Amino acid sequence: MAGSMLGNIFKISTWGESHGKGVGVVVDGCPAGLEISKEDIQIHLNRRKPGQNRYSTPRKEDDTVEILSGIFEGRTTGTPISMVIYNTSQRSHDYSEIKEYYRPGHADYTFDSKYGFRDYRGGGRSSGRETIGRVAAGAIAIKLLSSLGIEFYTYTKAIGPVEIHDFNWDETAQNPLNMPDAKAAEQAAAYLEECMKAHNSSGGQVECIVKGVPAGLGAPVFEKLDANLAKALMSIGAVKAVEIGDGMDVITSTGITNNDDFYLKDGQPAKFTNHSGGILGGISDGSDLILRAAIKPTPSVSATQHTFNRSGEELDVNIKGRHDPIIVPRAVVVVESMTALVLVDALLENMTCSMENIRKIYQ
Amino acid sequence: MAGSMLGNIFKISTWGESHGKGVGVVVDGCPAGLEISKEDIQIHLNRRKPGQNRYSTPRKEDDTVEILSGIFEGRTTGTPISMVIYNTSQRSHDYSEIKEYYRPGHADYTFDSKYGFRDYRGGGRSSGRETIGRVAAGAIAIKLLSSLGIEFYTYTKAIGPVEIHDFNWDETAQNPLNMPDAKAAEQAAAYLEECMKAHNSSGGQVECIVKGVPAGLGAPVFEKLDANLAKALMSIGAVKAVEIGDGMDVITSTGITNNDDFYLKDGQPAKFTNHSGGILGGISDGSDLILRAAIKPTPSVSATQHTFNRSGEELDVNIKGRHDPIIVPRAVVVVESMTALVLVDALLENMTCSMENIRKIYQ
Amino acid sequence: MAGSMLGNIFKISTWGESHGKGVGVVVDGCPAGLEISKEDIQIHLNRRKPGQNRYSTPRKEDDTVEILSGIFEGRTTGTPISMVIYNTSQRSHDYSEIKEYYRPGHADYTFDSKYGFRDYRGGGRSSGRETIGRVAAGAIAIKLLSSLGIEFYTYTKAIGPVEIHDFNWDETAQNPLNMPDAKAAEQAAAYLEECMKAHNSSGGQVECIVKGVPAGLGAPVFEKLDANLAKALMSIGAVKAVEIGDGMDVITSTGITNNDDFYLKDGQPAKFTNHSGGILGGISDGSDLILRAAIKPTPSVSATQHTFNRSGEELDVNIKGRHDPIIVPRAVVVVESMTALVLVDALLENMTCSMENIRKIYQ
Amino acid sequence: MAGSMLGNIFKISTWGESHGKGVGVVVDGCPAGLEISKEDIQIHLNRRKPGQNRYSTPRKEDDTVEILSGIFEGRTTGTPISMVIYNTSQRSHDYSEIKEYYRPGHADYTFDSKYGFRDYRGGGRSSGRETIGRVAAGAIAIKLLSSLGIEFYTYTKAIGPVEIHDFNWDETAQNPLNMPDAKAAEQAAAYLEECMKAHNSSGGQVECIVKGVPAGLGAPVFEKLDANLAKALMSIGAVKAVEIGDGMDVITSTGITNNDDFYLKDGQPAKFTNHSGGILGGISDGSDLILRAAIKPTPSVSATQHTFNRSGEELDVNIKGRHDPIIVPRAVVVVESMTALVLVDALLENMTCSMENIRKIYQ
Repeated sequence: MAGSMLGNIFKISTWGESHGKGVGVVVDGCPAGLEISKEDIQIHLNRRKPGQNRYSTPRKEDDTVEILSGIFEGRTTGTPISMVIYNTSQRSHDYSEIKEYYRPGHADYTFDSKYGFRDYRGGGRSSGRETIGRVAAGAIAIKLLSSLGIEFYTYTKAIGPVEIHDFNWDETAQNPLNMPDAKAAEQAAAYLEECMKAHNSSGGQVECIVKGVPAGLGAPVFEKLDANLAKALMSIGAVKAVEIGDGMDVITSTGITNNDDFYLKDGQPAKFTNHSGGILGGISDGSDLILRAAIKPTPSVSATQHTFNRSGEELDVNIKGRHDPIIVPRAVVVVESMTALVLVDALLENMTCSMENIRKIYQ
Repeated sequence: MAGSMLGNIFKISTWGESHGKGVGVVVDGCPAGLEISKEDIQIHLNRRKPGQNRYSTPRKEDDTVEILSGIFEGRTTGTPISMVIYNTSQRSHDYSEIKEYYRPGHADYTFDSKYGFRDYRGGGRSSGRETIGRVAAGAIAIKLLSSLGIEFYTYTKAIGPVEIHDFNWDETAQNPLNMPDAKAAEQAAAYLEECMKAHNSSGGQVECIVKGVPAGLGAPVFEKLDANLAKALMSIGAVKAVEIGDGMDVITSTGITNNDDFYLKDGQPAKFTNHSGGILGGISDGSDLILRAAIKPTPSVSATQHTFNRSGEELDVNIKGRHDPIIVPRAVVVVESMTALVLVDALLENMTCSMENIRKIYQ
Repeated sequence: MAGSMLGNIFKISTWGESHGKGVGVVVDGCPAGLEISKEDIQIHLNRRKPGQNRYSTPRKEDDTVEILSGIFEGRTTGTPISMVIYNTSQRSHDYSEIKEYYRPGHADYTFDSKYGFRDYRGGGRSSGRETIGRVAAGAIAIKLLSSLGIEFYTYTKAIGPVEIHDFNWDETAQNPLNMPDAKAAEQAAAYLEECMKAHNSSGGQVECIVKGVPAGLGAPVFEKLDANLAKALMSIGAVKAVEIGDGMDVITSTGITNNDDFYLKDGQPAKFTNHSGGILGGISDGSDLILRAAIKPTPSVSATQHTFNRSGEELDVNIKGRHDPIIVPRAVVVVESMTALVLVDALLENMTCSMENIRKIYQ
Repeated sequence: MAGSMLGNIFKISTWGESHGKGVGVVVDGCPAGLEISKEDIQIHLNRRKPGQNRYSTPRKEDDTVEILSGIFEGRTTGTPISMVIYNTSQRSHDYSEIKEYYRPGHADYTFDSKYGFRDYRGGGRSSGRETIGRVAAGAIAIKLLSSLGIEFYTYTKAIGPVEIHDFNWDETAQNPLNMPDAKAAEQAAAYLEECMKAHNSSGGQVECIVKGVPAGLGAPVFEKLDANLAKALMSIGAVKAVEIGDGMDVITSTGITNNDDFYLKDGQPAKFTNHSGGILGGISDGSDLILRAAIKPTPSVSATQHTFNRSGEELDVNIKGRHDPIIVPRAVVVVESMTALVLVDALLENMTCSMENIRKIYQ
């Protein structure tokens, strides 16, 4: 079944493999009249581009987007927007070895279980390169939301045992780890150096805060905003946990502490606290959205690992090549993109939810 | 937009409010020929029924299911299965007060924001009573999976600060908190008594382990098994975090530790560890599925809380009535039901994924 | 797969068999704040009720709707609306015979082919009784559209060789055949009497004209308004052809004749002719929608027919019992309901199609 | 809302405008392991290519397909298949005139009504060029069906008043009008010459017969096979009527005539007649599928026409340029493609419909 389509109204359809001709996405259902340029998209693709610092894979890719349809005279036309990013990296690598066996921690075995065989070159469809389509589509969603005053603050919250303690937004773009805390970024870098020396890799956590989200987004009981955000974030390779608001901490909290009291600020509803992370009953409450994704360490490590192959034999493998010791900093823009895609879809959905809105449009 | 429908092939459509005539569900897309009886469904509804012990709301409901269609001579016919559970509880309560103001921690304000008004009686559609439709549908999914040898072990893992340390499955049904650890259950009960004395409530955590899941379920990149599980669990009211396998612990883990080495057990693929929780690249790998949901404390507490009302005035409120001091034990069957619904859908989806399967059916 | 769900935003889920406990529908995605009463629905159910005249099955059914959820204080709440119509007819009939063989012209064989067995009592899910759910849901759609000034004129256009020549709308409700032409109704009645004497049945045609539809409904290239109308009408049992505007006549027409020239009427776009039936490029153009469904003769006839049975033996059968000699007049309200359901869905969809509309709602 | 996506399991997402960079499609949900080459697709694209004879637009396009993903070592991998066909035709044309006014019979006005503005160059998204994506995707569906012994016979049945009387399949590819009757083709050609002299255009009809379809495809009551075929065919620009089996003729038929008696042929179910067109109760019955689409005359004619413009002024227009005097012969492959897409989707859906099938896959 089609697994690469997402959304109910604002729908995307991504495609592409790591070592095929390219990757891309079709965005269908984008409202007409949104001003958008190639640069609006490229800026986000650049945020996830590999090879920008020593904590990321050295694979060189331009990741330049081409827009093939759906935009005319600088604005979306309401018809499908097709975008392609051609793969340009050299493919000198010999994949004949990993073709036959199943790498631990990777999707080799599960793809073979499902489909009978797989494009084994560089992970094929299960490569992180697949996320380019998400980011290109997400860039359009971010632009649309931005035009309504909705703004994203997404960053690395933790790398291995190193968590941020300060929050200085401007710092985020100043360090290669996308942490809003210079000191934590330094400590995290030191930790990563150790990992790299040991040919090991590190996990981490991304946090996303969204300001300016109107109340009313999300459709109980299954299309709740938090439900769709959880799906969108968990669909990112390597994400193993998703939290909204206080997340895991609610386990040990109590009702009196956890409830957020309301008040009125300049006549507008506000809350003294935001344990709920901006969502109540699956619907946005007008306060900041707060969400986090826990990301597992890159499975590509250079240790000897035990596995089996297509011929049904066990073997020890030692996978060569240098890989990302951490993908968390590059995942920041992916988390943001997925969040934006869910928000735009919920924003459009909410327009259709009341006779009052219908009358605003049809009279 | 329709928010109460779930699934791609095995679809459900739930309906009903806390104080309306009843709640129910239509299951559409259930394969024909599944043997199922009213009792198969009732047994799961009884697991979530209120008023069974002192840690649950005293509201009395029979929660008796009636099957209106889709089953003939003891087997599903392939046509929609409609089930209704009539509300029988007395409705002597006066709701005129909460009609006007917004309870902190509840969905009152967000429903009004979205729809303009709400059925304020007992939470209306945002009541936990909504989950009855999920459980009735889930019971069918569980029966189907069971016929293929797929078995569920779902239980309370933590209540407030009390976590299980032993795992004795048979114990789970022996204590009112559904904990597989008698000692932890005792400690948790003591903790809840304190909460109740303080008119407060507690959060907790549910864990679900599924054995016998075949490899191959889940469709990258958006219909991944873990993505849909995350959505399904997060859609349950009060869930604020979802974990797969090692979940949050991957943040501080490393690749060498986190990768699960493969071996062959009686010629079948197996893993020495299961950090991945049975899912790699969004597809089941044949080992146990492991997932957890963090559940916030019931927002109905008796403390004085600050809020505002429909007239735009701030006020202090003190909500009366006795409520569940904890919903975690009753949520166990809801988590299991949602997991089963996602699994059946993925199981059916996977049938259509290869020419090899097509040939098994059409020749 | 779920086959009994329809719609993208305004979704319905119908259920029920001819001789089960009842039939019904869940409407999910209906905007909040629509005033609706039980009578608004009953009035349309009464239009399709059997046994009202000699040209319809003598089966007696009250077809009384019960609303179980989604409506509070006389208005829709935005949550799912569940409606049930219990079957009340006596079931003295013995179905042991048709259980084993496949009636020509019926769905007996195809249901068995697909599902392996079937509820053979009175056609089960393939009975015309299934359309009750469509009409109950359609009644809500009609009410919503009516509040925006959109009005339906649906009637029998032809019965066997007898076609209408006059159009007097008020006459439609005056004759049992729902024809807007008294003389044609008389001729058709005479033709039906002949059919009945010969234990035979007749086909016919329903036409639906919708006035007041705003321009802009329908989403190219697959969710075009005419495409979804064709699906909705063809999904009605017995419909074998669907036409929009000039329909079949376009085959022999030419471009110069077929194009509808535009002009301005009181400053509003208008057309001198309406060959297109109100749809251009799959989008409504603001003129009247015109559509027609061709309905095959009821397959239940009393002639000797040849067929085979579940044991793989050929046999001659002579099916007893009196049935509708024509279903066209009762199908009128079903065609109207399906049209209304498609229109509401397209109306909601269109709200999300431009930044201009987004700004009308979110600022 | 996304209007350019089709299908439930085998899904396609088309994109592209007449005068943009290209057109294309993403096919998602195609089963893995299907052998497919670029040539398998190109052969069908060539069937709709313009400029091949004097009855088609002289626009020159290579319409060469490029496959960007989803196929590895000659077989589908189960991941999305992205195909692009770049536009190569010169764009010397000046569109400044039609930018401002609304051509009768075209979608100019309706696109502006919906989206506020449009890509006016060559019809933009409403151009017939949009069907290239359908044909590229359809080619994959046809290949899959062919591997199961399902074969298509699609042809021009009528052009204007000229209908076929003979049926000689091999003749179909011998004349530029794709008619299986040489004499009718000659007469139709003569009729078209007249149309062309008068700067006029002609309508016509396409018929599609599908042999080898297994019984059981289609999911009542809304995902019926005929319902989805009607939608798919009506979604093709210019189609104004769709018929299944006897189609319009059922209006004047009777039950005794219209029912198809069954018999057994070599132990297999067969029918003496096929008035139903291979579908009973919305499910395929194993006999030939028969469907027809009525296609309106091309709206691009050179007569003086009356219309209005974006400034709200009426005017007379005389549209220049030579266009297709008929699109019916080129629509043949589009009708076939849409039919194939619906059939593959129904074929996959049907695999999930019974416990018997589930057991065939999972044990």
